[in-house]
Amino acid sequence: MSLLGIDLGGTKLAIAVISSSGDIIHKESIKLEGREGKQVGALVTYVIGVVLKAERFSKDPVHSIGICVPGIIRMNMGTVWAPNIPGWENYALMDEVKSIAGNVPVIIDSDRTCYLQGEIWKGNAKGCKDAIYLSVGTGIGAGIITDGKILRGSQNISGAIGWMALNKPFVKEFTECGNFEYFSSGKGIARLAQDILKAAISYEGQLRNKNIEDINSHDVFVAYENDDEIALNVMSVCVEYWGMAVANLISLFNPAKIILGGGIFGPAVSLIPEIKEEASKWAQPISMQQVSIEASELGSDAGVYGAAYLALHAIHPGI
Amino acid sequence: MSLLGIDLGGTKLAIAVISSSGDIIHKESIKLEGREGKQVGALVTYVIGVVLKAERFSKDPVHSIGICVPGIIRMNMGTVWAPNIPGWENYALMDEVKSIAGNVPVIIDSDRTCYLQGEIWKGNAKGCKDAIYLSVGTGIGAGIITDGKILRGSQNISGAIGWMALNKPFVKEFTECGNFEYFSSGKGIARLAQDILKAAISYEGQLRNKNIEDINSHDVFVAYENDDEIALNVMSVCVEYWGMAVANLISLFNPAKIILGGGIFGPAVSLIPEIKEEASKWAQPISMQQVSIEASELGSDAGVYGAAYLALHAIHPGI
Repeated sequence: MSLLGIDLGGTKLAIAVISSSGDIIHKESIKLEGREGKQVGALVTYVIGVVLKAERFSKDPVHSIGICVPGIIRMNMGTVWAPNIPGWENYALMDEVKSIAGNVPVIIDSDRTCYLQGEIWKGNAKGCKDAIYLSVGTGIGAGIITDGKILRGSQNISGAIGWMALNKPFVKEFTECGNFEYFSSGKGIARLAQDILKAAISYEGQLRNKNIEDINSHDVFVAYENDDEIALNVMSVCVEYWGMAVANLISLFNPAKIILGGGIFGPAVSLIPEIKEEASKWAQPISMQQVSIEASELGSDAGVYGAAYLALHAIHPGI
Repeated sequence: MSLLGIDLGGTKLAIAVISSSGDIIHKESIKLEGREGKQVGALVTYVIGVVLKAERFSKDPVHSIGICVPGIIRMNMGTVWAPNIPGWENYALMDEVKSIAGNVPVIIDSDRTCYLQGEIWKGNAKGCKDAIYLSVGTGIGAGIITDGKILRGSQNISGAIGWMALNKPFVKEFTECGNFEYFSSGKGIARLAQDILKAAISYEGQLRNKNIEDINSHDVFVAYENDDEIALNVMSVCVEYWGMAVANLISLFNPAKIILGGGIFGPAVSLIPEIKEEASKWAQPISMQQVSIEASELGSDAGVYGAAYLALHAIHPGI
């Protein structure tokens, strides 16, 4: 028995065929290349069709399919809102996928929930019943499991931690994405560096060689490695925000484990000791001692592992 | 069948005998009057002994006992840490109570959890499966229920929202109680008014008539009712903090209901519209639309109701 885990992101589709014991049998990644709306849905069903019919998987066929999506799932409708995929305001993914999957069960869940499930199954939160995955990429979200159960909230949109209020005063720029995400997401890192650079007079560091509008978070991390003053400045702001957000998760949830992942962790993994130090200033002190804060072990595979785990759990709830 | 609900606070013990349908048959309140350590335990067991033996309850005897305490319960040990009761660092309350309760089951839980259970059973969160009780008194805590289950965390100290980081920079004064509690608890309100008053030169309002060190939150609320400038100033700071904290609960938990209670709500109930307005600036906008933010309906009875509900649930888990 094997499982098909699909991780749909804003720019690519990653898939993996995974054994029920968690070994990756096959994996590949396909760029979306500007696909929108139904083109993205068609790519997902195409890939599923290929895997289900493939001769090479026929000895150990796929028994269940899990899909993680970058947005909100309306569980009762099977529709998806994914802000980074144009035309996916209320996309009927479940119906479309079921039409190709036939009798093979299909589970759809949010990326942040799948990342966490992946880490609990095969990564750095193995066996944890109270764990949080803080996903920092273009945007910011949190997958949260308490007492072994996914925290969903009344309408399945819990974990929207990018909206966390962390510093007064409110300014209208937070309206689109929230205070935390505004400063500490991939987008936020780039914006902050650009803003500082625009105001800098005497700065002659390496970011000066770039067209200001083109500076992205990758450039900032490269500059940071070279002790660039603007990059150091940006990272010290981010560490403060990340530390405060982690502290708030600790005080509210008293988790055993917080996993830092997403594209930014990645390069920001080296900052985890500083983030811990910042968090320990603010957090409830007993909970702070009880938590372990770690980088994602599975990296960009967390999504396919988590989706596959949910697919497995759907047919074997005891697992 | 009736239930005994006991709400142990830092200054008094409230008890109520409550029918299984939620009617209060008898209630009373006893001041702690400086009792410490074992004296407080003795008062709890004395009261239980009196109720269990009382002729007047003999037709409808107490079948289960619930106790809420102002602190952390170590569930496996039955011991309590209650920072406002001297000598209750690791107090073996469960053993002591069981010695008098005999075969009558006993449940002990935190005050914030009981307040929320009370509101879900008989108050403003009736039937809610995703609800939060933000308790603002001398200190600040949150009772949290998600998908019908009490959120406990890995070591049963979740909901320590007084420690929430809401504004940079960190200052050492937050070390004892957390950023949110430092400014927006009963103690915080008094401290802030005192600090502003000490620095005020031309102020001649009603708080000037008080000995600065004696000013408490009640004085500030009375002054606020009279449009006193310092009190207005303090309340605008508090509304901002309360609004940000409520926003963060909304973004993280996507609850159906947030109940504002504790001694401060109370007089701060009139500020709820302003708190909602502040929260709506910061919170995830879809979750913000889905939540209802309300004052506690049960007020100071929330604890005995919640304790009685947990006592009922212990003998009838289906309820």
